[in-house]
Amino acid sequence: MNNKQIPYKIYLEESELPKQWYNVRADMKNKPAPLLDPNTRQPMTVEGLSEVFCTELARQELNETDAYIDIPQEIVDFYKMYRPSPLVRAYCLEKALDTPAHIYYKFEGNNTSGSHKLNSAIAQAYYAKQQGLKGVTTETGAGQWGTALSMASAYFGLDCKVFMVKCSYEQKPHRREVMRTYGASVTPSPSETTEVGRKILEEFPGTSGSLGCAISEAVEAATSREGYRYVLGSVLNQVLLHQTVIGLEAMSACDKYDIKPDVIIGCAGGGSNLGGLISPFMGRKLRGEADYEFIAVEPSSCPTLTRGKYVYDYCDTGKVCPLAKMYTLGSGFIPAASHAGGLRYHGMSSVLSQLYDDGLMKAVSVKQTEVFEAAQKFARVEGILPAPESSHAIKVAMDEAIKCKETGEEKTILFGLTGTGYFDMVSYQKFNDGIMSDYVPTDEEIANALAKCPDF
Amino acid sequence: MNNKQIPYKIYLEESELPKQWYNVRADMKNKPAPLLDPNTRQPMTVEGLSEVFCTELARQELNETDAYIDIPQEIVDFYKMYRPSPLVRAYCLEKALDTPAHIYYKFEGNNTSGSHKLNSAIAQAYYAKQQGLKGVTTETGAGQWGTALSMASAYFGLDCKVFMVKCSYEQKPHRREVMRTYGASVTPSPSETTEVGRKILEEFPGTSGSLGCAISEAVEAATSREGYRYVLGSVLNQVLLHQTVIGLEAMSACDKYDIKPDVIIGCAGGGSNLGGLISPFMGRKLRGEADYEFIAVEPSSCPTLTRGKYVYDYCDTGKVCPLAKMYTLGSGFIPAASHAGGLRYHGMSSVLSQLYDDGLMKAVSVKQTEVFEAAQKFARVEGILPAPESSHAIKVAMDEAIKCKETGEEKTILFGLTGTGYFDMVSYQKFNDGIMSDYVPTDEEIANALAKCPDF
Repeated sequence: MNNKQIPYKIYLEESELPKQWYNVRADMKNKPAPLLDPNTRQPMTVEGLSEVFCTELARQELNETDAYIDIPQEIVDFYKMYRPSPLVRAYCLEKALDTPAHIYYKFEGNNTSGSHKLNSAIAQAYYAKQQGLKGVTTETGAGQWGTALSMASAYFGLDCKVFMVKCSYEQKPHRREVMRTYGASVTPSPSETTEVGRKILEEFPGTSGSLGCAISEAVEAATSREGYRYVLGSVLNQVLLHQTVIGLEAMSACDKYDIKPDVIIGCAGGGSNLGGLISPFMGRKLRGEADYEFIAVEPSSCPTLTRGKYVYDYCDTGKVCPLAKMYTLGSGFIPAASHAGGLRYHGMSSVLSQLYDDGLMKAVSVKQTEVFEAAQKFARVEGILPAPESSHAIKVAMDEAIKCKETGEEKTILFGLTGTGYFDMVSYQKFNDGIMSDYVPTDEEIANALAKCPDF
Repeated sequence: MNNKQIPYKIYLEESELPKQWYNVRADMKNKPAPLLDPNTRQPMTVEGLSEVFCTELARQELNETDAYIDIPQEIVDFYKMYRPSPLVRAYCLEKALDTPAHIYYKFEGNNTSGSHKLNSAIAQAYYAKQQGLKGVTTETGAGQWGTALSMASAYFGLDCKVFMVKCSYEQKPHRREVMRTYGASVTPSPSETTEVGRKILEEFPGTSGSLGCAISEAVEAATSREGYRYVLGSVLNQVLLHQTVIGLEAMSACDKYDIKPDVIIGCAGGGSNLGGLISPFMGRKLRGEADYEFIAVEPSSCPTLTRGKYVYDYCDTGKVCPLAKMYTLGSGFIPAASHAGGLRYHGMSSVLSQLYDDGLMKAVSVKQTEVFEAAQKFARVEGILPAPESSHAIKVAMDEAIKCKETGEEKTILFGLTGTGYFDMVSYQKFNDGIMSDYVPTDEEIANALAKCPDF
């Protein structure tokens, strides 16, 4: 514990913006398992990945040796429009919980995409532009990633085609309009515009779609067009790499004010925010320079780390993507319809999967009604309406702070507040009306989905 | 023009937060005309106003002599959660317009209420709490003010009853849910819950409501209850006073970086943002210390300053509020249904009305399709999706910058970016779909509405 006066919000100077991303794989003893070609089952090469991704991004995807990778100046300039993001001391939450713990959150919601997703979107759009491409394709579920990519594409003058999971497309027309305002085209998925979409529609008529389907469509839309590549908002190593700007800023701010986090908490869907936040701290832990407790928080309706298996699996429903070794619930797993927020991907970043498997990180799952209770409390005392995803981390941070009250420990808790909930009011309404329900998949459901993982 | 390196975003330190609000009336030679009792037509007293407003706020309302009024520490502490707000250099917009002008905007959208409204909401809630009240009532149109007051009330544990203009209530269910998440009760206006509401419903069955109606209902709901007072989000002197935190911060940031604005631009509905932004600069102008050009921007569908009359008028439809001398279109004036954003009040702050009448400030009106064009351009280059209201100022700032390109002048332009448009996507959708229309009231319509102003 330090005695310096900590402001409510710590803003680093523009000059303190990270100039390099941090690649945690360079410091990992057990490297994450390689992506495999779905046909040959051989490790993917830069060349192979370049058919789907921009070449420079394919290089970043496979780079396990360089601990630091320069952030191009154009990206730094874009970052300056909304970064450094504040590290906030949750004085009001501490008071409301009457806890001796010190609570901090790194707030990534102060930009129009409403989340941290913009950090990687702008990087991926930049490399696409550099490569002389016409445009990019992607999928989006809750809509934060699609919005971020639309903004980034508008900035660099790229065409942007978003496949939006059909149920989200219908339930979130406002998200769709933000993307359109930034010039993106938005197609509900599965759609008739791709072969894989037509196949899925034939097999499952009337389906409301899933992230896995939308990924397959977006990949096909990119690979079947001249001058397009596919980009993804989470799971991949390159995305975690770009997102380390979160953790690097958080670490600089902590160091500057002599704040020493004991516990670092983040919500985990595909792992982009959690990986970005914890990587630099994990690096210190891996190098033996410091120790931290890391906690991944996932929804109990999509419990990838806590109830999944660490095996090779398909990344998408259409099975067009490389295979990844990761904690997974099986590529056919779709969270129950009652599940409100994002964090619904069946798998988890290979980096985080490996770190979790090595016992370097914990994971817990929480139910959505308790998540919304935490969200409401946080909104009222801290004045920020959090995204349902981010609220998973809030819930566990509050739990940790309450434990401190019981034990009298003065722990320092840091969590990632990934975004705002302005486009999630339909879910908040369900909570306000007392009609939100919880769903926890049965062991049988998970076993059935896992049974469809590729066998080798 | 200065040569210092200006960052993209200037954040003042927490310690540089204003500790006093600035009361421009103290420096005005011609004071704004007093509020009059609607029955006696005598100037309102603190005692009289205290039946409707908190006593301390009534005092601030009538205070024409103190140039500076201390901001209570509890309010400063709340401000620290989202202030100082950034003064942003619009480098990307300058580049996109290819203008020699330097463009700055003071961005008030980085808080959950989505606008500057929170600056006064927290002050008014604080004084209500200090006075030992149970709760507050108010009206809201577009919903920013209601959201801000809900947040402020939750923070101080006050009950909050919001009367929301019926058409907004129906068209903006998400805004309503934000308020409910903060614990406020939201009633569509006109409603059966007040006498004045029932009267209006009887006279105009099926009406979709107006701000003027909602004000009357909120006032009745406060004065007919023990322990409640009415609070208002704009127009009043007290509100302009609280909003000077915007201008004071902007001025400090300008001084710190040696930025000398030539033109200062703000959108104007009731005047709270414009008044708050320009007051401290206007003070310098009134005291002969500096000169600035001030421009109020209003929608051509509600052209209060540019086409209204400077007379005493009713502030609400039910005629329960004091009379105010202001530029007005008549209390019965309601902008055409095609009008999308806020800025729809029939009158204008007495302070701004007087300054405008004295020739110290200019006013222009702009059409909504050109406003949304400017909004879209701004969103794409500056990465912030602006509120339709704020976009009025963006439009005129861009016009000014384009003029500089033509003349070669290196003017410094400062405008107020009051908030974000996340809850305005229905309007953006109309614009994206190319079905947004403009409406400019005829001279006859305005003359008819003005004819109903009280005659004395």
